Amino acid sequence: VDARSASDEPARLAEIIMPMFADQADGWSSRLDNGSSAQLLAGVPAQDDCAVFRLAGDQELVLGSDYVRGPKFGLYELGHLSEYDIGYYLAIANLSDIAAMGAQPIALLSVIRYPKHMADETFALVMKGIRDACASVGAPNVGGDIGTAERLILSASAVGVVEPGRSLRRSGARPGDLLYITGPTGIAAAAQLYFNKVVKAGTPMTGEKEEELISAWKRPQALVRHGRCLSRSGVVTSCQDSSDGLKAGIRTIAERSKVGFLVEEAALPVADIVEEVAKLGGADPVALVLGDSVDFQLIFTVTAEAGARLEETLSAGDLPFHRIGVATEDGAVVLRRLDGTIEDMPGVEWRHST
Amino acid sequence: VDARSASDEPARLAEIIMPMFADQADGWSSRLDNGSSAQLLAGVPAQDDCAVFRLAGDQELVLGSDYVRGPKFGLYELGHLSEYDIGYYLAIANLSDIAAMGAQPIALLSVIRYPKHMADETFALVMKGIRDACASVGAPNVGGDIGTAERLILSASAVGVVEPGRSLRRSGARPGDLLYITGPTGIAAAAQLYFNKVVKAGTPMTGEKEEELISAWKRPQALVRHGRCLSRSGVVTSCQDSSDGLKAGIRTIAERSKVGFLVEEAALPVADIVEEVAKLGGADPVALVLGDSVDFQLIFTVTAEAGARLEETLSAGDLPFHRIGVATEDGAVVLRRLDGTIEDMPGVEWRHST
Repeated sequence: VDARSASDEPARLAEIIMPMFADQADGWSSRLDNGSSAQLLAGVPAQDDCAVFRLAGDQELVLGSDYVRGPKFGLYELGHLSEYDIGYYLAIANLSDIAAMGAQPIALLSVIRYPKHMADETFALVMKGIRDACASVGAPNVGGDIGTAERLILSASAVGVVEPGRSLRRSGARPGDLLYITGPTGIAAAAQLYFNKVVKAGTPMTGEKEEELISAWKRPQALVRHGRCLSRSGVVTSCQDSSDGLKAGIRTIAERSKVGFLVEEAALPVADIVEEVAKLGGADPVALVLGDSVDFQLIFTVTAEAGARLEETLSAGDLPFHRIGVATEDGAVVLRRLDGTIEDMPGVEWRHST
Repeated sequence: VDARSASDEPARLAEIIMPMFADQADGWSSRLDNGSSAQLLAGVPAQDDCAVFRLAGDQELVLGSDYVRGPKFGLYELGHLSEYDIGYYLAIANLSDIAAMGAQPIALLSVIRYPKHMADETFALVMKGIRDACASVGAPNVGGDIGTAERLILSASAVGVVEPGRSLRRSGARPGDLLYITGPTGIAAAAQLYFNKVVKAGTPMTGEKEEELISAWKRPQALVRHGRCLSRSGVVTSCQDSSDGLKAGIRTIAERSKVGFLVEEAALPVADIVEEVAKLGGADPVALVLGDSVDFQLIFTVTAEAGARLEETLSAGDLPFHRIGVATEDGAVVLRRLDGTIEDMPGVEWRHST
């Protein structure tokens, strides 16, 4: 690291942050279906205590914070992710929570603290990743906090708005509701298994396939279009993202909604790459799909009578979905294996493992 | 630390966080002067991806994030601050930014990451401090993020609402405007000087005075009542808190507003305890008052013709203030010393020193 390029905070603000977010000076606004709007009055260029939005009309405000912890980024330490990538990831991890509420993201606040001698170029990469991830959902990064710390610390908060009564909670699933996932899970965990274990054992895949694996970490997506479509439908009874893993997500909806779920192994979307890595790594592909893989898909439930209609709407919008199970009365969350046996779900339990 | 008491994240959520914030289940709401309201629909008890508010009517939304960095808490490392105190401080540091916008705080999101073996009791102290600081301004702590990290990491975001057009920015000061501070600054810096240097030199003060010093760190205040009064007045042209120090705050308003300021040393409020510590520590008390002391007072400007009226309003509300200078055309921020000489402001420059 070239110490000359390790500017202090005011210099970084003036020379890196301000040019990067100068376009916010021209205003930014977002409009909901009911005509409610959020207009950015003071964003990054204002350099004020807080960002300011003018909110018009009735709407619900949704707020969430996610910290991205170091151990999640073993792939960064191994050199597979750049500083741009982890900035991008931080923003998506936060924006995905807004998507899971069915809301339109209107702001990200990022807290980036860095070692004193981190080069400006490296810091700028983190910020560019954040900016571009925000742009992927059309929301501005309106500020936050920068400064030094003992090591790189990444935290953020995201804010969204949604029509009154249309935020998607975890607590509304009822017995008989259909359970869906927006896309295959387990790819992020497969990437970890591959780069941490399989590669070291000397059985590498093609560069193209490696790229497919790492892209789950490099360019995750916040499924805002999905979330907005589910919110508008009025028939989605619960929703959350799969950032804690598919099993943990289903269990959380079960707990919050006081229902159980019967999940069909035959219906679980399993990406070819997950099958392949599981084979190379001696793992159960279903455990990868259900375990603590951070994929940012949306898990949601729909009333049984409205399922077909919602599926049509999603298809018409080119929004993928997979019906994977049904909510039950008994409170248990179980998996029906291909051979018909019913058992507890496999896969590493989220959080308890840390 | 008793390892048995170092519960994992789900256990802490269930046994510490949920009971502490159970009262949010009964709803919470805030109303602005114009009838606009924010009603909490889903807070901590909902355990959802995000907190949810219903917003009614037109209002501006203000958002800010502050990370509390380790080096600020030398007094914690010396044993003068508890975990409760640093949690309290984190929340106030964030809520003070909302106060400085003239807004009513409606939510705090806290990000608390802790070493794996931190005891539940210690973690609960941090959360209690946050909860009580939020209660001091009547705002709920609606969630955020918890989990392990290499060391204690404290970050938060605060959200507030204010009547349209009434947020207090840094950019509105004009030449001739009067400059005010809500109360004496320098006490936080005096506490650092005292406990880091004076005490070690063997010249301690009474326990009562030590308590007065440390209270700047233990129980800082977010001046929401001040901020709301300034916002309602309609004559305040700029405002920010003094968390970067008085000199830095005045300079920031000067830069953002494209004015200068002439500050009168004779008008600066200097607390007796600051005078005393400066004497014991061989420091210039004015440098303590103007330097990088984190006191959370509000620095604001008022049009010259409205100054007397605003002073009456503040007095009627028992809200302290000190008129300390005037905005000038020439862009320089200078101090008129008691002997009439005009010079650059003394005091440690904020942030550049890190």
